[in-house]
Amino acid sequence: MYTTHIGSARPDSIDIYGYDLCSEVIGHAGLADLIFLGAQGRLPTENESKMLNALMVGIAEHGFTPSALAARLTWLGAPEAPQGAVAAGLLGAGSVYLGAMELTAKFLQEALSGAPGDQDRDTTAAAVLDAYEESGERVPGFGHPTHRPRDPRTARYFELAERWGFLGSHSLLLQAVHAGMERRRGKLITLNGAGAFGAVLADLGFDWRLVRSIVVAARAVGLVGHIAEESARGTADSMAQELFRHVEHHTDYQPRR
Amino acid sequence: MYTTHIGSARPDSIDIYGYDLCSEVIGHAGLADLIFLGAQGRLPTENESKMLNALMVGIAEHGFTPSALAARLTWLGAPEAPQGAVAAGLLGAGSVYLGAMELTAKFLQEALSGAPGDQDRDTTAAAVLDAYEESGERVPGFGHPTHRPRDPRTARYFELAERWGFLGSHSLLLQAVHAGMERRRGKLITLNGAGAFGAVLADLGFDWRLVRSIVVAARAVGLVGHIAEESARGTADSMAQELFRHVEHHTDYQPRR
Amino acid sequence: MYTTHIGSARPDSIDIYGYDLCSEVIGHAGLADLIFLGAQGRLPTENESKMLNALMVGIAEHGFTPSALAARLTWLGAPEAPQGAVAAGLLGAGSVYLGAMELTAKFLQEALSGAPGDQDRDTTAAAVLDAYEESGERVPGFGHPTHRPRDPRTARYFELAERWGFLGSHSLLLQAVHAGMERRRGKLITLNGAGAFGAVLADLGFDWRLVRSIVVAARAVGLVGHIAEESARGTADSMAQELFRHVEHHTDYQPRR
Amino acid sequence: MYTTHIGSARPDSIDIYGYDLCSEVIGHAGLADLIFLGAQGRLPTENESKMLNALMVGIAEHGFTPSALAARLTWLGAPEAPQGAVAAGLLGAGSVYLGAMELTAKFLQEALSGAPGDQDRDTTAAAVLDAYEESGERVPGFGHPTHRPRDPRTARYFELAERWGFLGSHSLLLQAVHAGMERRRGKLITLNGAGAFGAVLADLGFDWRLVRSIVVAARAVGLVGHIAEESARGTADSMAQELFRHVEHHTDYQPRR
Repeated sequence: MYTTHIGSARPDSIDIYGYDLCSEVIGHAGLADLIFLGAQGRLPTENESKMLNALMVGIAEHGFTPSALAARLTWLGAPEAPQGAVAAGLLGAGSVYLGAMELTAKFLQEALSGAPGDQDRDTTAAAVLDAYEESGERVPGFGHPTHRPRDPRTARYFELAERWGFLGSHSLLLQAVHAGMERRRGKLITLNGAGAFGAVLADLGFDWRLVRSIVVAARAVGLVGHIAEESARGTADSMAQELFRHVEHHTDYQPRR
Repeated sequence: MYTTHIGSARPDSIDIYGYDLCSEVIGHAGLADLIFLGAQGRLPTENESKMLNALMVGIAEHGFTPSALAARLTWLGAPEAPQGAVAAGLLGAGSVYLGAMELTAKFLQEALSGAPGDQDRDTTAAAVLDAYEESGERVPGFGHPTHRPRDPRTARYFELAERWGFLGSHSLLLQAVHAGMERRRGKLITLNGAGAFGAVLADLGFDWRLVRSIVVAARAVGLVGHIAEESARGTADSMAQELFRHVEHHTDYQPRR
Repeated sequence: MYTTHIGSARPDSIDIYGYDLCSEVIGHAGLADLIFLGAQGRLPTENESKMLNALMVGIAEHGFTPSALAARLTWLGAPEAPQGAVAAGLLGAGSVYLGAMELTAKFLQEALSGAPGDQDRDTTAAAVLDAYEESGERVPGFGHPTHRPRDPRTARYFELAERWGFLGSHSLLLQAVHAGMERRRGKLITLNGAGAFGAVLADLGFDWRLVRSIVVAARAVGLVGHIAEESARGTADSMAQELFRHVEHHTDYQPRR
Repeated sequence: MYTTHIGSARPDSIDIYGYDLCSEVIGHAGLADLIFLGAQGRLPTENESKMLNALMVGIAEHGFTPSALAARLTWLGAPEAPQGAVAAGLLGAGSVYLGAMELTAKFLQEALSGAPGDQDRDTTAAAVLDAYEESGERVPGFGHPTHRPRDPRTARYFELAERWGFLGSHSLLLQAVHAGMERRRGKLITLNGAGAFGAVLADLGFDWRLVRSIVVAARAVGLVGHIAEESARGTADSMAQELFRHVEHHTDYQPRR
């Protein structure tokens, strides 16, 4: 026997995580609420739902990222299988661009679970900064090539988190880390939207290990718009051709050895 | 120059389909609304949003489907890359299980755009049934292995569509096709949830060509729960081992020629 | 019980399609031979192997195609999961670029199985051309944007097929279709490498339904080179940035309705 | 300008890594040789080709692995897009099952490049074992659930490597590590096929960073057989239904927090 809590179906009703799909979910819950349900086993409260939706719409769409390009280029060759284009657009959701969200949630959850219960926030923040300085790694969630010195999403996420009651220990620790970092370096540093996203998601009760899957689901939603635009007035074909015209062929190949 | 309407970023603001992300989208729109925005170029009204969310939560999760199994089995081998597990779970979203949604929207949109403006609904429905009978193909959106003779989602979708003002020409034509089919065959036939989904989505203004991408996005949301359950108390490994124990190896291979 | 002929393992030996992996396959068979084994249930003869390898190396690599770009762009975001980059590069292997190979094999196999046994080849070819003319569809396997009026792969494939004994009924029918088409239109028309590939693969005994999977496997091999080049001296990042610089943001969105 | 060494096309010829495709590659090189070409920039010698093919056919097919199941389950839903089934079957090629090959190549290449030039092999092996013991991690390339105490592929790979002149510093170091490990633990331990594969691939001149992509390409070849068998006499559908019958639905969900 394999155990699941996800759902079951009878001829005239469908159960989903213990809720009746037709009378308790359809018409009551929103799409993002199913992420809460899948990750935490219950439907969110009204405020939890509003907060989660706010976070999700902030990351679903990022314009012509490499991932969106990969989806559009894939659609070019297989428009009859758009599931492949969406999948291709998700596969780049790895460590480089989308790592910051889960890594921020991770270091915050680990710092808080590891710290003595009565330790004040600035001390915990200083310990985090010390540990990263010692390791030589960058603290996740900071810096942005465009949004400098402030990322407009960060303030918005925290504003809504405060309004709806989710500015909790993870967000406050991240803010303390931010303040400490600016003090140490003596300059303004961007606390980016990815970092704030990870912190508020942690304050909503999500384990950092699920953050990437959640981000991937948001991106799948954003890719619908790219496929819609590509199918209506495609640009990927001319992009690919333009790139191809600028490829220069060398024959003195020096491969990696 | 490549043209897009999807978005652009400046240091202190982000535009998304002509909306200011931070002040007009985050905190106002929900995750499903971005699908409406991507497909139709504007945020939905309150009722459009409620209807779309109702549809999306009805299809996001379907239990241990082959797709969910593929995602879980993929997660087993590469838990460090959950984007691959989600992608694997989406790639089965092809003609067999998920075709009905887009095919129903398609035949409804084509029947309505092809019919004379003053033709009554029953005549159009009869023409649809005649055409399918002649071709020998099955009308999409009918029949279900479990939900017989009625699919509980169908009534719920139509009830909400009526309440919120979206029981339009596509849904009504599908209902007329359903009535005509039961009359011709002299028995109850399930109008399934996939068919009703396609019809109401068409009444919400979505082109059938985008239906599969929308379904895929909903499934990405549903897969978060599978990855959460698999990572917390995995079953895929024992499933795979159990299947493996029941594989019988024959050597009289008769391949396809 | 589930039946397979693919293989089984014991502590000190491994069976694969009825062969002992270590003593009969490793050291004797080549990589492409496993495609023959998987599709036809036996290892190829020496000439079959040479012919299949010739076909496979002709399609494995096609430069900066949209598929290769999708793989490279995916690698950018998730270099720690190269399986995702390869997968993304395969997902565009749909109807648009890679359809010709399977469609050519399909129409040849169908024409030959449907024709009376004693019908001469030119009559069968004329019937094929008539059927395509009547349907208004293009005959697969003809035309090429670069290789005009002759595709250098086509002559090479047929030369080797003749040398190794595989210039069979499918290739000869395709040549007859080609001759007939040029006669009817009164000009040179390219019989492209994809068409010749499909014909010779059919003459090697492969069912057209497996052609796309075979092509996909060849492309997976070709993508290793793209990942090697990208990881050694990446170009995808600057490509994506260059494209991004040429994206123009419009706000007068006219979506598909 | 973007630089590539991969290839270019003119109307009557195609260049691939500096070779003329039609006269120098098709009819001369085999499928696996393109992996050598892509990774190392030249076609392999005859012995290099034989060794590489021996390695590749040893890993292409592994029976009903979770990956093969994911491919078959994906094919069920989208048989019209077999590229998606292959992609799904590759996406599980992550750290858990296929990590050993690249990790073995990695630790061997790092140990050899880090060791003093005149250090004898047993000293290097002892240093490797000491380092792993200290870290508490397992040495990659050892242990197997079925092939105990010896993996039949390991002996075969090394036998052929010796015959063809590739039993080099990486393989010899791995053998020394193996001997040292058995001495320290006082029992027989399996040096598995994945480890031997990684070592001989390193002796063939491949950088460990490309090992996973190479393995993924081999698996794409192996998946052709699964798709062939599934399309001829499918088992995935009854497997999925059987599993579904044994899923037990609980409502006392205790999610990861």
